[in-house]
Order: sequence, then structure tokens, then C-alpha cells
Amino acid sequence: VRAAIVAVGSELLGSVRAETNSLRLAALLHRHGVPVTAKSVAGDDVDEVATQVASAAGRHELVIVSGGLGPTADDVTREGVAAALGRSLERDTDLAESLAQRFRAMGVRMPANNLRQADVLGGAAVLANPLGSAPGQRLETAGCTLFLLPGVPSELEAMARAEIEPWLAANTDGGELELGCLKVACMAESALDERLEPFYREYGSEALTILASQGDLTLLVEVAGDPEERRSGLGERLARLRSLLGDAVYGESVEHTLERVVGETLAAAGATVVTAESCTGGLVAERLTKVPGSSAYFLGSLVAYSNRLKTELMGVRPEVIERSGAVSAEVVAQMAHGARARLEADYAVAVSGIAGPGGATEGKPVGTVYLAVEGPDGGAAQRQLRLPGDRDTVRWIASQHALEMIRRLALGLPPRGRHVTDVGEVADGAGER
Amino acid sequence: VRAAIVAVGSELLGSVRAETNSLRLAALLHRHGVPVTAKSVAGDDVDEVATQVASAAGRHELVIVSGGLGPTADDVTREGVAAALGRSLERDTDLAESLAQRFRAMGVRMPANNLRQADVLGGAAVLANPLGSAPGQRLETAGCTLFLLPGVPSELEAMARAEIEPWLAANTDGGELELGCLKVACMAESALDERLEPFYREYGSEALTILASQGDLTLLVEVAGDPEERRSGLGERLARLRSLLGDAVYGESVEHTLERVVGETLAAAGATVVTAESCTGGLVAERLTKVPGSSAYFLGSLVAYSNRLKTELMGVRPEVIERSGAVSAEVVAQMAHGARARLEADYAVAVSGIAGPGGATEGKPVGTVYLAVEGPDGGAAQRQLRLPGDRDTVRWIASQHALEMIRRLALGLPPRGRHVTDVGEVADGAGER
Repeated sequence: VRAAIVAVGSELLGSVRAETNSLRLAALLHRHGVPVTAKSVAGDDVDEVATQVASAAGRHELVIVSGGLGPTADDVTREGVAAALGRSLERDTDLAESLAQRFRAMGVRMPANNLRQADVLGGAAVLANPLGSAPGQRLETAGCTLFLLPGVPSELEAMARAEIEPWLAANTDGGELELGCLKVACMAESALDERLEPFYREYGSEALTILASQGDLTLLVEVAGDPEERRSGLGERLARLRSLLGDAVYGESVEHTLERVVGETLAAAGATVVTAESCTGGLVAERLTKVPGSSAYFLGSLVAYSNRLKTELMGVRPEVIERSGAVSAEVVAQMAHGARARLEADYAVAVSGIAGPGGATEGKPVGTVYLAVEGPDGGAAQRQLRLPGDRDTVRWIASQHALEMIRRLALGLPPRGRHVTDVGEVADGAGER
Repeated sequence: VRAAIVAVGSELLGSVRAETNSLRLAALLHRHGVPVTAKSVAGDDVDEVATQVASAAGRHELVIVSGGLGPTADDVTREGVAAALGRSLERDTDLAESLAQRFRAMGVRMPANNLRQADVLGGAAVLANPLGSAPGQRLETAGCTLFLLPGVPSELEAMARAEIEPWLAANTDGGELELGCLKVACMAESALDERLEPFYREYGSEALTILASQGDLTLLVEVAGDPEERRSGLGERLARLRSLLGDAVYGESVEHTLERVVGETLAAAGATVVTAESCTGGLVAERLTKVPGSSAYFLGSLVAYSNRLKTELMGVRPEVIERSGAVSAEVVAQMAHGARARLEADYAVAVSGIAGPGGATEGKPVGTVYLAVEGPDGGAAQRQLRLPGDRDTVRWIASQHALEMIRRLALGLPPRGRHVTDVGEVADGAGER
């Protein structure tokens, strides 16, 4: 089975909104071993919908059409599919009655155009929409099954699970894939590749997909075969990857964000954390508090852009700023120490750097970032980085490092130093503290 | 002229990466009055690329193919287009030599597969890539012009400006559109629509496109016609919108983010700002410092999740927290006052709320947010909101309100109260302070 996805909606052809429903559908299809081999977007135009649907249905065993099933005049998916496949389109009286019922229950008069949602393609099965008024439809042609689903993401997702998933289970001969995931922060993709050399030799390079985003690597493993084989094959591969990556692995699911893992680590230890930030401007605190329930371990944060506030809020000594500059190993160490002591937390992390585009000085180019973490029992670590990229990128990667440093210190892992040289070690201050 | 966009790359058919190059291209085409009427994604597969390109070229006057022009074996755009149009594909010796030259200049041996980038379609013009090694190509068929451009966004954008823009200018008979934009924060779309009723009566509802995102509305106006007409027509419409929206308009370009406008306002006044945050966890500070040069007006921020830190850092009186709760009008007023005084800033904004999913109490459901702003000369304002949505949404919209409150106070505008009732006024505390 090969699948195509056709998204309908003129707003998806403009310069603002990207088409993302197909990503959710691709994830579901992928779990069942069905590749998406083409996708397309049609505006709210009967002919264009008809052209794209006819082309997709002629070349695929499964076609999912999303959007354009609503009540308004620009919802033309039904008409487009009817034209593409030469099917009739007739009003279903039961469906019309249930739509009317829906409005009566809300005590609202139903606008007449709502009945368009009761128009059903010849031979189609009507698919209930538990979250909205636009029902879906499923129909068969020679060699292709088509699903028409609403474009509202929550409705699409619920109906894909309820309608497409069972169809996949019945029509893909158990070709389901076992999927595994590992996550690694603050490592260059090239460094990861090097470490995984033995894995590639044993399993081949196509056994692993690496998705790289700023300071974060997601490793995806998939194994086909019968259920028993798949599970043991996946377990074996993940174990091999873990043996090569060791404590660099911080998560084992796409949903495991670094801030969530840090939060779970702190919560499990009954420990608290604070941040002392300069160039990240509150980003580390913002990420820590993105996690529901973070009040269990997050106490607060001090953000100091000005040198005066670094001294007043965090107790950084003015003569140290004078001597080493606000972006220095000594200053971040004092920021972390001061914040931890003053806010009475178990852990404190501090960041100071030059995010750019301005602010570079002799020997400290844009992207220079110093970090320090301090924990109980004298535990501490520091890093100096030279990060590539624009302001947003520098700030984001710096926040990744800050979170990773908390994680490692809280788990009692040794500080990682290797990546520092990867991005260019800053000589002065490297040996300080 | 009608345009289609074909993006090539298997990674764009998966569950992680959305196709976004077409958004940039659509913006450029739109400026010249050229609508994108279809777009599609093909994996790294010669047949699929050929099918999609043939279909697009048969129905459009302009087709842009992005991606798949690199040196590796899975870069098959050239082969796919050759198959679609029945063109030859031959190595261009000049191009091959300039690729080799490129590598010699870097002192690196050129892998042989790099020469694939010198394969040129029969009849095509080679388009220089100022930022990368993969050149583009332009070719004509009966009724259609095709541009093949690299998929790396920066390279695509530079080449679209250098190659497609002049082509559009020459081939669209001055059908360029005059585009205008206005931005409004913290207003419900329905409330905006109501205010714009007279505009819709005068110019029709299709004269305006509204893009709504969380707490932010972007109004797009476009006017066709000859250059003189377009400009005066646009000026007239924008003036009418401004007369209806008054000081609710904070920006006049898609690039004018609220944090940037707040920054420009503060910088122009030579004023400084700090934040005192609870439920937003540093988000307001993070947004203010996203803006390059924000150190000119942003001093720092205090984030206090715990009640102890609200007292210690911001001077909130414990008996007030005891009496009114940490999420209350009195507490945010003291947070703003304390932060402004202690950090010695001209303006301070404070946020405390229940972002959820936990934390709701009797009378204070998830989404309850209190905000306060304090400025020089006794200037101050407060708001109480009940925001819909999940944790991320509540935090984001709260940060919008915080920024908008700073903007209004710094510009000497009266506080806005109307929207408070839109989302449900919180009775207790409404008259406090």
C-alpha cells in the first residue's frame, strides 16, 4: 500500500500558513509501514481538487483528502471528488436530519447551507465526526480507497484514529513497524555519526534516521517483520545505540523534551532549581516552566541584562566584571552561586553570552557563551562555547546547554567537555575556578 | 500567469518536517499578483518528480521546482524534469570547471559526484547560486516557464529574488499588487470584525484578509491597478482602517512583532523596563530580549513561582498573598511596584495566573490571569483575564497582554478595558487599587 495526501484549502497556498495535517497522517501511516509517496495542496476550486484527486487515486492504493468538507460555499471537496471519480452527489436525508437535530439541541437556527454537509458521494460510507459537524466519507474505486476527512486538526486526528487506523490494520497484512526513539542534546551530528560507526557497520546506515534541530538530535529506529521479531529487533538496536551513546541519551520518545526530562529528574530527587540569565533573557526559565507541574521544582529566576543588576541581584562582584567582562567564566560562576544562595535552591544554572548581532568584543565574537551550574555538596560545572548562527539560534542552543548541564549534575554524571572543543574552546578562562 | 510549486525531498513526506519554502515563494509571487494555484511534494524519486512536474507544467504558466539539485545520488530533480519534458541532460564543461575551481579554492578534493551539479537540461539557462554550489536552471516549454532552484531556504530566497523577481516584473504586465498590513494585539477577531463593519460596507469583505493567531491579528490589504491607483487606493483603505481601529493598531508590517514595537517605543522615550513574572515563567522577558539591541531598554526580570520568592524578590506582603491568593489583583500590583522600585526601572509589568492544567481553585479556573503595569509619574494599569486554551496558549496570550500594556502606558494611551469583558470579567478585585 502506497499513500497520497491531498489537502484542500486556499489558505494553504498563501505565504503564511504551512500545511501540517499531512505530518500527523504520515506518522500514523508510517506506524503501519505505509509510505506517503506524494502530497499536494489544492485551493478551494472544484477543478483543481478534481485534477489532484484523480491523479492521486490513479497512482496510489490509499488517498486521504483533508479539508473542504464544511458548510460554506468555498468547501468544494465533495464536488471535486465527485467530478474526479465520476460519482453522483446526493443529499442523505438521515444525515440532514441529524445535522438539523444538532442545531436544535444548541437552540440555534440552522443556516440552510449547513445541509451541504449531508451531500454524500455515490457508493461512499459516511464517517461520523465526534468533534464537529462535518462528517467524513470513505469510498472505493478500482484499486484505491479514498478517505475524505475534515481539515480541523483535532477532528482530522480523531477521525484518522477511528477510521483509517482500523483500515490500515486490516489492509496492510500486519506489516506494522516497531518504532523506537532516542534523544541526545548538545552534540554535533558529525560527532554522533562518529560514535555510531559500529552501529552502522552492524545494521547498515539505513537502519537509523537522524533528525537534527538546534542542539538536539532525535534518533529514529524502525524494524519490520512479525510482531515477535520486530520487538526483539528493536530492543537489540536500541540497546546497541545506548551502549555507544551512554549517558548522552536523555530521552526515549519524541515527546520527551529536554525541559521535561530535567523536570522529571529534579522532581524524582525532590530538588529545586533556579536560573540566572543574561543573554538568554529568561528563555531557560521559560522552558523549565513550560512543563505542567513545574512549580514542584522550579522556584524562580533572575534575569540581569545590566551589569548593575548582575551585582545587585546575583552578587557578582563589580571588580570581576571590570576585570573579566560580563561575558566570562568568573561572572557566570558567581551568577550561579549567587542565585542558588539567594533564592535558596538546590541547583542554579547561569548563562552569559553574546547573542548578537551586536556586542562582539576583541576575543569574544558573537556566539561566545559561558555557562555555569552549581548544585548541592559542592557540585559544579562550567562550559565555554562558540556557537554559530543568529541571535535566536545562539540563545536557543545556549538554553539547551543550560538544561543539559542541570540534567547531568542532578544525575551525578560527569560534565561533558568534548563538545566544547568541537565548537572552539575559548582559551582564557578555560582553566579557571 | 498562474503558478505551481513542486518541492522535492523525501524528508518532506515524513511526519516531522513541514514544507515551508513554498510560503516564501508564494509571498514573492503574490507581490506580483501571481496566484499559486497548486503545490505538491515529491520524494527523491525520478518517476514521481517527473509525474508532478509534467502535471504542473501542463496546467500553469509558471512552475517552480525547489530542492533535489545537490550532488548526492538522491538528488534527482534534474533527471525527473528531463523525463517530464523529454529533454536531454548533458554535463556542462564550463560549469564543471567552475565547480572544480570552487573546491580547489577551499583546498579540498572534490568528490566525483559533485559534477552531477553540472548536468544541464537541454535548452536550459544556468542560474548562478551565490550562496551554494548547486546552480539553478530556467527552461521554457510551450506555454510554461520552469525554474529549478535549490531547496536550502537561504539559497532559494536569494535566487528567487535574483532570478524570478525580474522574470515576474517582465512577464506580468505591471499587474503588481500594492500590499499593506496593520497589526492589532489582544483583540478578539469577532470584536475586530464588528469595529470594521463600516470598512466592509465601503470596500467589501474581500478587500481585507485577517490572519488570527493567539492574541494577535494581522490585517492584510491588497490593491490592484496601475501604480498610481494602487498606491492611492491602498493609502485610502489603510487610513480608513486606522480611523476605525485607532490606537489598537501597534504595527504596520508583518515583521513588526509586538515585542519589537514595544522596544522601539521604549528606546524612543529613553525609558527602561523590567518584568515580574509568575505563570509566564520568564516568557515576557524572553520576548523582550529576542529583539536585537534590547539591552538599550531591558534591564532584567524577576521570575517567582514560589510565594516565598514573590515576597523576597518583589516585596509582595505575605498577608496579601494569604488574603487574596498569589493569583490576584493586589499581588500583581505589588509585584509590578516592587520590581520597578528594586530594579530601578521606568516601567515594570507583572503577570500572575493559572496556566494549567493544574492549579485551579474555587472562583479561579485555569486561564485566570492578572496583570499590572507601573510606569513613571504614577502611571499604572491592571487587567484581569480569563483566557481559553492550554498551558502554552494561556502563557502566550498573557505575554501578549503584558507587552500591549507596556506599549499603551509608554505611549500615554488609556488602558483598554473592553476585551476584559469579552473574555469574562473577574468580579472580585476588578475595582481594587
